[in-house]
Amino acid sequence: MDIQSIKHGIGAGNSRALAKAISLVEDGAEEADELLASLDASRIDSSAVIGITGAPGAGKSTLTDKLVAVCRERGKKVGVIAIDPSSPISGGAIHGDRIRMMQHALDTEVVVRSMATRGRLGGLCAAAGAAARIMASAGCDPIIIETVGVGQSEMDIIRIADVTALVSAPGLGDDIQALKAGLLEVADLMVVNKADKPGAEMLAMELNEIARAKGRQVMMTVAAQGTGVPELFDAMREIFESKRSSGERDAQRTECRNMEVVDWGLEMLRPYLYAQSQKQDLETGGDPRIRAKRIVDSLLACGKDR
Amino acid sequence: MDIQSIKHGIGAGNSRALAKAISLVEDGAEEADELLASLDASRIDSSAVIGITGAPGAGKSTLTDKLVAVCRERGKKVGVIAIDPSSPISGGAIHGDRIRMMQHALDTEVVVRSMATRGRLGGLCAAAGAAARIMASAGCDPIIIETVGVGQSEMDIIRIADVTALVSAPGLGDDIQALKAGLLEVADLMVVNKADKPGAEMLAMELNEIARAKGRQVMMTVAAQGTGVPELFDAMREIFESKRSSGERDAQRTECRNMEVVDWGLEMLRPYLYAQSQKQDLETGGDPRIRAKRIVDSLLACGKDR
Repeated sequence: MDIQSIKHGIGAGNSRALAKAISLVEDGAEEADELLASLDASRIDSSAVIGITGAPGAGKSTLTDKLVAVCRERGKKVGVIAIDPSSPISGGAIHGDRIRMMQHALDTEVVVRSMATRGRLGGLCAAAGAAARIMASAGCDPIIIETVGVGQSEMDIIRIADVTALVSAPGLGDDIQALKAGLLEVADLMVVNKADKPGAEMLAMELNEIARAKGRQVMMTVAAQGTGVPELFDAMREIFESKRSSGERDAQRTECRNMEVVDWGLEMLRPYLYAQSQKQDLETGGDPRIRAKRIVDSLLACGKDR
Repeated sequence: MDIQSIKHGIGAGNSRALAKAISLVEDGAEEADELLASLDASRIDSSAVIGITGAPGAGKSTLTDKLVAVCRERGKKVGVIAIDPSSPISGGAIHGDRIRMMQHALDTEVVVRSMATRGRLGGLCAAAGAAARIMASAGCDPIIIETVGVGQSEMDIIRIADVTALVSAPGLGDDIQALKAGLLEVADLMVVNKADKPGAEMLAMELNEIARAKGRQVMMTVAAQGTGVPELFDAMREIFESKRSSGERDAQRTECRNMEVVDWGLEMLRPYLYAQSQKQDLETGGDPRIRAKRIVDSLLACGKDR
């Protein structure tokens, strides 16, 4: 499939072209730039990027599935980017992700992309951002980014998403800790999933206290039964629209893209730094930090001339 | 505390000087380089850096505690670097780590340092490597690096450690997946902790199959009671010595330090890239990846001249 047909395929919403395009960008192929330059800016502007995050066991995958189902009922084409915590070595998809992919395998209006963190968190963030733009250009709206666990991938994705829901559930002590730790600062709303389980009311009360202070809302869902999921989707869509009209979303996207530039740039510089460090190791040696400084200083010396 | 007294303090094994020194490096202070240049190369060479890794719930913290106790019984000064998965925002220490720190709070021969991943995995890896060298210069041997969960921080730390034990326990299904996923490729030995729990024998058998193929050994521990921990320590020490005499460890450290140079370099380049991306955003715009390429190309154009 050549670059031209990929470009046209994306415009036509062809899932295969879309998958190829994302791979090209992930692999840093030469054609990637031509492809990214050809994306549909107005579709990118209008489509909502939704982030689903929270601790393992909160039911994020199930909730994402049900959000997809809601979107499909409403005739929307949906993109799903599942951030995969699998071992950097294996690069394989996690079980939950495989299940989801099977579930929607026959629906060409649901595009699922799984991305292994592979440790390139920066790179991951950048790759996910590009994938979201490609999906949007292909007519996906919303694009749902599902992350795993508490950590940096979560923060990166919250950065990419226009609206982020922080999913919690009763019986996850650590989760509360993480919530208090400050994820609330960045999440747009909180979801108490498994709301039919004991402790859900307690959790909701706890969260409501924090949420009120931050002007956030807490919603209850039972993802397994789909209960509360349409309401959740509407709430997120509403937040998206108000952020969009207020200009908050644009400011957010601008900042996020600047960060993406940094992420891509760091990925692109890595091979150069490694080559330099190997050369240097033979020549000079010394503490790694001092060696790094030598390389960086000489690079920035000319960077400054520009 | 000025840089001179910090340098002397490290040589004298003063914990306060040691803590200051690590902070200076973590914060990228100006004096950091002078300090790192003054470290004791022979102590760094002789002290073993031990990595303890594995899935959450395997009992890594308890095992680390007991390894520390074994080292203390043998009159060794121990350094512990606990990689802290706390939210990038909070930066706070995890509960288990706090407990450990309390436990050894009065023992000046146990230096515990907790490092929040803060998402700077690359930077974390570099900072942990530098911290290990500072601890070694202060007479710590071994230095135990404890990581959390399966993921990149784990891979980074395995890279820094001379000998890495992959800790597992019965009833952690995901863990086995991770093991099979390839962590075995990099771990030097496997530990079945909670060996008194049902399923431990099964797990040990499963692991033995994999281990035999890779020429790795599987050891059983009940960290909570300290059972098998002295044997584990001896085994790790033995692996360290044989790697050292075979030169494998030196090759490993050289490679690891080249990677560290890359990590430090990327950290140092981040602010420059961010500043450039902000400038650029106002001037030109375009897809982040294309913008990043423009910045990097112009940087490397002069990098090549060197």
